[in-house]
Amino acid sequence: MALLPESARAVLESDALAHLVTINQDGSPQVSIVWVGLEGDEIVSAHLREQQKLRNVRRDPRVALSVETPVTNPIGLREYLVVHGRATIEEGGAPELLQRLAHTYLGPEVTFPPMPDPPPGFRLRIAVERVGGIGPWAEGS
Amino acid sequence: MALLPESARAVLESDALAHLVTINQDGSPQVSIVWVGLEGDEIVSAHLREQQKLRNVRRDPRVALSVETPVTNPIGLREYLVVHGRATIEEGGAPELLQRLAHTYLGPEVTFPPMPDPPPGFRLRIAVERVGGIGPWAEGS
Repeated sequence: MALLPESARAVLESDALAHLVTINQDGSPQVSIVWVGLEGDEIVSAHLREQQKLRNVRRDPRVALSVETPVTNPIGLREYLVVHGRATIEEGGAPELLQRLAHTYLGPEVTFPPMPDPPPGFRLRIAVERVGGIGPWAEGS
Repeated sequence: MALLPESARAVLESDALAHLVTINQDGSPQVSIVWVGLEGDEIVSAHLREQQKLRNVRRDPRVALSVETPVTNPIGLREYLVVHGRATIEEGGAPELLQRLAHTYLGPEVTFPPMPDPPPGFRLRIAVERVGGIGPWAEGS
């Protein structure tokens, strides 16, 4: 099975939010919700400003993210996707990626970010190492 | 402001799922979705079996959890609650707590766990250290 089976790709390309986890300098967990999309087999997100999660990734690229789905399994537990991977940071391109993701998350007519002359920001790119959670992408796990 | 303002308590007592983050032995992040509730000012969850997150907490009690809300703010970003805290593990009591939480998450008539003679399991109890995210509980953060 590919690292990202089609069922997992569908979740990552949907309007479901990603809970992105990075590791703080003291080893404690840091989590924030981000919009995500796919570029090839990698997961991408966009950030207008330097943020704690970016500082964390520069020091330790190991990240995890979890995404809820609307599907409930037979015993009543919600299916969800977990991705473990390694992140890299690219300079610039955040407004363009945010605009693309806003079409998924907010609607086809939305202009985002809602400001004139947004800064170029950063793109986070996550190479997938393994998937888990509850769902067809985690069968046998 | 209390560590858990009323707005944050309401999220934690709702049927919104919690994305719980612990730290693996190698320092990488581990995340899974759990049902949570409140006991006093502490956040509780229940686990029938020994799991990676419990082994992680025994070694490093620092955890974080994030919870989506249905509220979208004026620029289109979803409000969400992040809690940082320290977890302890209590032996037993998991079936009773799961039954209580199932009434919130699945409905008032549900019997959970759906098995005869469930094991006593474990309860995870999180002492809140700080809250964040996007929402009234994070104003000024």
